[in-house]
Amino acid sequence: MHGFRTDLAMEAFDGAQDARPCGVDVHRWEEGGVTLTEVVVTTDDAARALGKPAGRYLTMESPLLKKRDPDVRNAMATLLSEELSRLLPAWDGRSCALVIGLGNRQITPDALGPAVIDRTLVTRHLSDHLFPLSDMRPVSAIAPGVLGVTGIETMDVVESLVKLVRPCAVICVDSLAARDSARIGATLQLTDTGIQPGAGVGNHRRALTRQSVGAPVIAIGMPTVIHAATLARDALECLGKQAGDVDLSDAEHGLPGTALGEMIVTPREIDALIQDAAGIIAAGINRALQPELTDAEIAAMMD
Amino acid sequence: MHGFRTDLAMEAFDGAQDARPCGVDVHRWEEGGVTLTEVVVTTDDAARALGKPAGRYLTMESPLLKKRDPDVRNAMATLLSEELSRLLPAWDGRSCALVIGLGNRQITPDALGPAVIDRTLVTRHLSDHLFPLSDMRPVSAIAPGVLGVTGIETMDVVESLVKLVRPCAVICVDSLAARDSARIGATLQLTDTGIQPGAGVGNHRRALTRQSVGAPVIAIGMPTVIHAATLARDALECLGKQAGDVDLSDAEHGLPGTALGEMIVTPREIDALIQDAAGIIAAGINRALQPELTDAEIAAMMD
Amino acid sequence: MHGFRTDLAMEAFDGAQDARPCGVDVHRWEEGGVTLTEVVVTTDDAARALGKPAGRYLTMESPLLKKRDPDVRNAMATLLSEELSRLLPAWDGRSCALVIGLGNRQITPDALGPAVIDRTLVTRHLSDHLFPLSDMRPVSAIAPGVLGVTGIETMDVVESLVKLVRPCAVICVDSLAARDSARIGATLQLTDTGIQPGAGVGNHRRALTRQSVGAPVIAIGMPTVIHAATLARDALECLGKQAGDVDLSDAEHGLPGTALGEMIVTPREIDALIQDAAGIIAAGINRALQPELTDAEIAAMMD
Amino acid sequence: MHGFRTDLAMEAFDGAQDARPCGVDVHRWEEGGVTLTEVVVTTDDAARALGKPAGRYLTMESPLLKKRDPDVRNAMATLLSEELSRLLPAWDGRSCALVIGLGNRQITPDALGPAVIDRTLVTRHLSDHLFPLSDMRPVSAIAPGVLGVTGIETMDVVESLVKLVRPCAVICVDSLAARDSARIGATLQLTDTGIQPGAGVGNHRRALTRQSVGAPVIAIGMPTVIHAATLARDALECLGKQAGDVDLSDAEHGLPGTALGEMIVTPREIDALIQDAAGIIAAGINRALQPELTDAEIAAMMD
Repeated sequence: MHGFRTDLAMEAFDGAQDARPCGVDVHRWEEGGVTLTEVVVTTDDAARALGKPAGRYLTMESPLLKKRDPDVRNAMATLLSEELSRLLPAWDGRSCALVIGLGNRQITPDALGPAVIDRTLVTRHLSDHLFPLSDMRPVSAIAPGVLGVTGIETMDVVESLVKLVRPCAVICVDSLAARDSARIGATLQLTDTGIQPGAGVGNHRRALTRQSVGAPVIAIGMPTVIHAATLARDALECLGKQAGDVDLSDAEHGLPGTALGEMIVTPREIDALIQDAAGIIAAGINRALQPELTDAEIAAMMD
Repeated sequence: MHGFRTDLAMEAFDGAQDARPCGVDVHRWEEGGVTLTEVVVTTDDAARALGKPAGRYLTMESPLLKKRDPDVRNAMATLLSEELSRLLPAWDGRSCALVIGLGNRQITPDALGPAVIDRTLVTRHLSDHLFPLSDMRPVSAIAPGVLGVTGIETMDVVESLVKLVRPCAVICVDSLAARDSARIGATLQLTDTGIQPGAGVGNHRRALTRQSVGAPVIAIGMPTVIHAATLARDALECLGKQAGDVDLSDAEHGLPGTALGEMIVTPREIDALIQDAAGIIAAGINRALQPELTDAEIAAMMD
Repeated sequence: MHGFRTDLAMEAFDGAQDARPCGVDVHRWEEGGVTLTEVVVTTDDAARALGKPAGRYLTMESPLLKKRDPDVRNAMATLLSEELSRLLPAWDGRSCALVIGLGNRQITPDALGPAVIDRTLVTRHLSDHLFPLSDMRPVSAIAPGVLGVTGIETMDVVESLVKLVRPCAVICVDSLAARDSARIGATLQLTDTGIQPGAGVGNHRRALTRQSVGAPVIAIGMPTVIHAATLARDALECLGKQAGDVDLSDAEHGLPGTALGEMIVTPREIDALIQDAAGIIAAGINRALQPELTDAEIAAMMD
Repeated sequence: MHGFRTDLAMEAFDGAQDARPCGVDVHRWEEGGVTLTEVVVTTDDAARALGKPAGRYLTMESPLLKKRDPDVRNAMATLLSEELSRLLPAWDGRSCALVIGLGNRQITPDALGPAVIDRTLVTRHLSDHLFPLSDMRPVSAIAPGVLGVTGIETMDVVESLVKLVRPCAVICVDSLAARDSARIGATLQLTDTGIQPGAGVGNHRRALTRQSVGAPVIAIGMPTVIHAATLARDALECLGKQAGDVDLSDAEHGLPGTALGEMIVTPREIDALIQDAAGIIAAGINRALQPELTDAEIAAMMD
């Protein structure tokens, strides 16, 4: 909308909340201490305006999430698991779900995806004849790394793995950027629109969607950072409204330091926050993918 | 000065660079691709105005530091080692230097101190009869943790260790906050004023200084973060200058999110940056404390 | 007994199980799927023979612990908490418990103590006037490092902290060595004899005991390694029994490699095992030290 | 040979050193303080006898490697780089080298491969038009994880990546098992026989060889562990030679503990040793793959 960068659909039009774009439906309700917001982008025009593919985006928010409140943590995992269960296809007794942890393991606020992979119950390799007799469903999980670390486009790696595994569903987990500092570490977003790195930049070849995969592609993310430039711009815009007609970009250039573009705003305790959130997301995924197993059985099978 | 939080003496009056406070001397020069700035706070009035104890502050800066330029890295380590050597007392053949890594190992941008401790050559425990015969000097190193993790005031732990070890010199390493984003990961500050957590808040009991210890207390730090509120305030101030008379605190409250106070601005690659900087600082410390050993001998003794 | 190194009292006479030394009482029972063994060393002669100070040693064992069985994990934490509660003094409304994590954070199988510290609820720094009004009890926790890393005797650091904090109880957590591979990661040992690094070597100055501290000193440990030389010797002894009179030390020298003395035997999954065990031990400690808080309240207070 | 497990070709016949198998050539020499041993397996019979594919195995050994001796470290990196350069094809100006880090990042002694990947200079993603004009050669690097963590056969993932990248050379790095404790952390093995997990078990489908890839497949490894059962068996065999005819398997069953099969023997300082070795191996790989870049240029490009 204004050059602000956010990965949350609900923030894409926050700046103009009163004037919610045509073609965007929003519902908000509460459940177990968690605020749910459903944003449905219904038209291509709205998708372009928001820079998000058409489809459904569900966010779950609670400020208590950051406080490690065990009730809210459990409520979030349950909501996530229920929502995932609705999106997953009925199991055919054979096919495998593929969980993909996007992001860079070496960069703390980008490590959410790999951290979830570390906690996902992986079962595909358990003797093949186990399925479909067992109560367990086959699951694979991998963190494919990022372009800067592997030299290979992440989407190329993911596509290779999809071809290899031929999953009945793909679940991608990633760290997100937000605009509102109160949402960092306090919000999960779930969408069935697939993953489209470069969406909005006009590069649609690499999208991983239900169409391209032939199976649902569900993305789960949590905002872990604000881009520093977005924060600065927000500060400027705020004041701009008061001050009337001033040149924002001039002011931006006046900020001390030139390295802002590469910097992020994040909570001091981001290391612990990532580990916590990974636990919740993995619990939601494990419950949804293994509906016949109890939490205790899932825990006992991890190693 | 203006409610901006910075641990760099050179930034404490940046906002009013043209009007450098009385009682503050500044010299700037270049050496091996590194810009050195010496700030000497000579009067109590100046100390109060800057919120920094009187004494000498030396910063070494190079934008290439973040780029892992090996020449600049080596130049920094050498400059640091030379400067430390000047500040250390002549060795009496017995007493021990104590290196203290301040900060929280579990919080990436706060982990510089502990990371330096992990790379410091520790020799005090090598058979006592080795000294003073050997070319090595006795060195201890410890990361005492932080109040929130131990429940014990860091300064209390440090004072206990000082009583125990009775060092001939104390070197403290810590992560710093800066104002200018270009200085994050690009600047080292060295000072002989000791460490005074709570300085400026009027709490002087806990200061660790040459007076309280009876030996030089040298602090080395690198800025790893900007406080998010400082960045927002800087953005607002910038614009304020253009826009004339507007109420900054009003604008500040208009920023999206209320959690800004606990957030930090930091480079995405902070994990790697901390490890890199720890290597440089430890190299500087090891060379200064073991003038009779080559880099290779120091490396070979680490394990 | 035979040059075998074990930190478990129950293993100190395993080699001669039939001939349990005079002055040693042993009881074994089961509770919640966990086997408990109480070894009481009642005489100085027995203490010398076993190389363990006189006192009470309680081990809790279950092979399911390694398998992450949630019921056994919870049963262990509960047993540990109950046992600790019995050993802790009635709380006087003021004094602080001090939890000490021995071992080296950088060496995986030695990192149990520091990992427990990372999960211990620390409260001593919460505003002093909170106590004794609150339901919470003041707790400090610290990992003092090891001699090779700090250059300072661990016991010297611990004694300094004891002087500083004047605790009403000290709980030390450490990684142990065992003889029986089945006990690695499957056994907790709890003792009220304090910690005596160098016990058996005749160095009694550094012991941290109820006498030296004036408060209970409780040690909790889990075996994480077997010394490779112990394993080799056990293998040799086994065969020796069959083969009759052969020279064990000759055979030992025939083993490929000379570096065995510095090597350890440990499970491949030791990294995960340490983290798991740290969670159980910390749960036991937190419950015992905060009897007025629920598990959920404890979790919510950690950050 | 005797049920002993070793990944070092030079150890596969150590037990019968005097009786080196027919079809195996061995040469030993010294260079820069490093002992080099070349084992060439020339016949299928010898390959079967040794349980190693026919081909050339080069080991570089120095006890000083574990001691972090900088000269030996540098000599090793240089030898490795020279040897790799000989095995790599002349560069065609376009094709990419693919470095694969085998092993499990979460298990310390198995993390060598991933740790090398973290230090490999990756360049394939730098703007395509850079090549072939630039002095740099395109390199990709990835750690594909292990079956137990991903649920996908490692070889399947690697084959997918090979199809995707179509490399001109594959370099695989892995942790190895040895028999002789003196070789742990002190030995590198390099071979051009490719990687054949399951070799010797008769499973040849998954081999990654020059034939299957159409490009050289070079494996680099360092022993990080001895299997505990191998150590015990070696101890028993040693004694067996003295004691005459005894039943080794009986004795083995007499060893305390039943969990030995899953245990490993490793140095206490394995965490540091892995990081050190990864630095040396990555230096060797980076130099060989980027012959036009200096060490300093390589370091400056890493981030």
